[in-house]
Amino acid sequence: MSAPLRIALAGLGTVGAGTLTLLRANAATIARRAGRPIDIVAVSARDKKKRRGLDLSGCTWHADPVAMAVLPGIDAVIELIGGSDGIAGRVVEAAIEHGKHVVTANKALLAHRGTELAKRAEAKGVSLGFEAAVAGGIPILKVLREGLAANRVTRIYGILNGTCNYILTRMRDERAEFADVLADAQRLGYAEADPTFDIDGIDTAHKLTLLAAVAFGGAVDLGAVHVEGIRHVSAQDIEYAGELGYTIKLLGVARPTERGLEQRVHPCMVPQTAPIAHVEGVFNAVVVEGDAVGRLMLEGRGAGAAPTASAVVSDLIDIAAGRGAPGFGVPAKALRTPKTAPMARHRGAYYIRLMVSDRPGVIADVAAALRDEQVSMEQMLQRGRAKAREAVPVVITTHETEEAAMRRAMARIGKLKTVLESPCLIRIENL
Amino acid sequence: MSAPLRIALAGLGTVGAGTLTLLRANAATIARRAGRPIDIVAVSARDKKKRRGLDLSGCTWHADPVAMAVLPGIDAVIELIGGSDGIAGRVVEAAIEHGKHVVTANKALLAHRGTELAKRAEAKGVSLGFEAAVAGGIPILKVLREGLAANRVTRIYGILNGTCNYILTRMRDERAEFADVLADAQRLGYAEADPTFDIDGIDTAHKLTLLAAVAFGGAVDLGAVHVEGIRHVSAQDIEYAGELGYTIKLLGVARPTERGLEQRVHPCMVPQTAPIAHVEGVFNAVVVEGDAVGRLMLEGRGAGAAPTASAVVSDLIDIAAGRGAPGFGVPAKALRTPKTAPMARHRGAYYIRLMVSDRPGVIADVAAALRDEQVSMEQMLQRGRAKAREAVPVVITTHETEEAAMRRAMARIGKLKTVLESPCLIRIENL
Repeated sequence: MSAPLRIALAGLGTVGAGTLTLLRANAATIARRAGRPIDIVAVSARDKKKRRGLDLSGCTWHADPVAMAVLPGIDAVIELIGGSDGIAGRVVEAAIEHGKHVVTANKALLAHRGTELAKRAEAKGVSLGFEAAVAGGIPILKVLREGLAANRVTRIYGILNGTCNYILTRMRDERAEFADVLADAQRLGYAEADPTFDIDGIDTAHKLTLLAAVAFGGAVDLGAVHVEGIRHVSAQDIEYAGELGYTIKLLGVARPTERGLEQRVHPCMVPQTAPIAHVEGVFNAVVVEGDAVGRLMLEGRGAGAAPTASAVVSDLIDIAAGRGAPGFGVPAKALRTPKTAPMARHRGAYYIRLMVSDRPGVIADVAAALRDEQVSMEQMLQRGRAKAREAVPVVITTHETEEAAMRRAMARIGKLKTVLESPCLIRIENL
Repeated sequence: MSAPLRIALAGLGTVGAGTLTLLRANAATIARRAGRPIDIVAVSARDKKKRRGLDLSGCTWHADPVAMAVLPGIDAVIELIGGSDGIAGRVVEAAIEHGKHVVTANKALLAHRGTELAKRAEAKGVSLGFEAAVAGGIPILKVLREGLAANRVTRIYGILNGTCNYILTRMRDERAEFADVLADAQRLGYAEADPTFDIDGIDTAHKLTLLAAVAFGGAVDLGAVHVEGIRHVSAQDIEYAGELGYTIKLLGVARPTERGLEQRVHPCMVPQTAPIAHVEGVFNAVVVEGDAVGRLMLEGRGAGAAPTASAVVSDLIDIAAGRGAPGFGVPAKALRTPKTAPMARHRGAYYIRLMVSDRPGVIADVAAALRDEQVSMEQMLQRGRAKAREAVPVVITTHETEEAAMRRAMARIGKLKTVLESPCLIRIENL
């Protein structure tokens, strides 16, 4: 067996501790599959005194992770500090500059600077592994880059944020409202104190743009992602979704169109018959549609210490075994920023819910607004007469239409005097 | 870009033609990801005159695939002839002997001779790729070998035969009997004229034992697989399964136990809440349970020209890119035959259905037989009095018990005069 792969680990939070623990617990199995041992020889974290319950014997301690990353005798650096600016990026840069392989779970950093960092790594002849940055333990990047390498991908979509899927699942199962479930999720540790990144779709956008870059072989283009979160999804909409044969999921969707690459994150009505509709709670899933393979779905844990460590260590094993593959599947210097398909030109079906006053002519006004934009209704649900002056819901689903037309119709409908609240719109995804 | 990888293709059936077509259709994408073009330069098939609609220009034709496999100037041989004995094995042997990489979709050959062939390939320093042999387009071998390489796998199970899953899905949806659906499936081309390999579980056993070898890093051990097919599954059992919250699937299951490696193929009652319960029709799925990653499921097309070609070409791309990984995840010379856990010692829950004459004392006799073997009943369903002398069904589910005890109880129950047909037993899988 060859010499060990010598690792410096920057960051000893949940994932860092999990990585250290996994490398030790399964050391023999890992060495057998990697062809050599993988040893953590240096660690760095903010607070040396913090009690972590980790045995750090055999590791040197470094207050400065950047200084650690460039030490001679280190073969690879694991960056688990996080954040798109600040120290994490400097650790990665320094490691690459000094010819060390890098493995990171930092989706924000990669989403902002992935192409640039991949080019730097390629120029230095080192690997940049980021399997752990997307969908935790699901080895989707390896599957796209290698397992499905013979395919032209025609669409990729996924449930990429466990917090959102947990909230939406509980809202449906308990017929509860978003704010109540979020508060409870925060109490239970399934949502952060500041949940913005998760529930506003930003975390999903980071992961989607990395998936899209690997799937389509282009530069990472975070700015091109259309992003909406789940704050505006109501218990009522989830109930209507069920009645119409759908489940509401926050999806990231990317696909090449004639107008360019479409990348979008928003709540979707997905048919209950679609495999992804059954992905519940904190689980993540990614569906790849390839011209040869057809539909392939991977479902697993998208977060947590051990699943994320599983992905981090798989990258290390590839490095130890000398199985280099370019991080984005093709040489980094060939990565070009794709043309962006404008969201206004997106075509799809829509669900809208209006709260209207129950009086003659309301439906006629709404229908006229849709008709004037060439939006064709598929179904309408109008139910039970409310008490006098109470708003009643009207739910409409449309046939496929253009986003811009839909937005114009919604703007006009929103201004009707008989429409009492801001209309709710959720896109229907044809899966 | 480097020199092309020069390929000889043995076998031009469905998958062979699909591979040729895919390599040409996506040639640019494939070359970009592989770092070099992949060219088929030689082909061999039984009948040169057969009309295949393939453009074979640029390929030399060879009547003898073994002679083709050893030609100088060939870098890799694709074996798509099939069969565990005969010409396919000789093509693979000859190619390896002459230092050519080999890619094959031949599960029967690998299930019988996988370890030996992997050792030969390793000794010659060539790759033996067989991603296409298990679950068609699902890149499960790469995922096990590389993506989940940091994990100790605690259980692996899957729906590995699309024909069986198609038949069971239609039996449930149409409340139809096995023989009728099989006949229709044969008419539609979803089942072979001689369906034995599929419906008796042999094909699933081939794939399971390959999965187990990769997941647990041992020698392929087909003889150790307990195999039952789906011929005895009735529409009635499928209906009861639904009532009890289960779906019936033909699963291959492998897991290490204290008594050795358990490998078994049989119809299973799986909870309707389990993700694999939703895998319908011809789709395949594999679930891996790893100590770090937790539960990971992959679902996709397990057969067909294009999905299987996707897997064949992914192996070629790895070879072209110089990403060698041992076929079974660890060096072949280290592969040892695992100790086998005897099926009689298997522990699990059971579903049994008896057809009894509706008279006093029947249940008491059945209950006594179970009690004497320490089998604890979980539920019993006994329904509607039949016309005089007509058999009535009694359905019992048990708590976890040992297979041997269950078999003894069933033998005794089967001999009761009041039990009118041979009892039906289906294992319940705790997922």
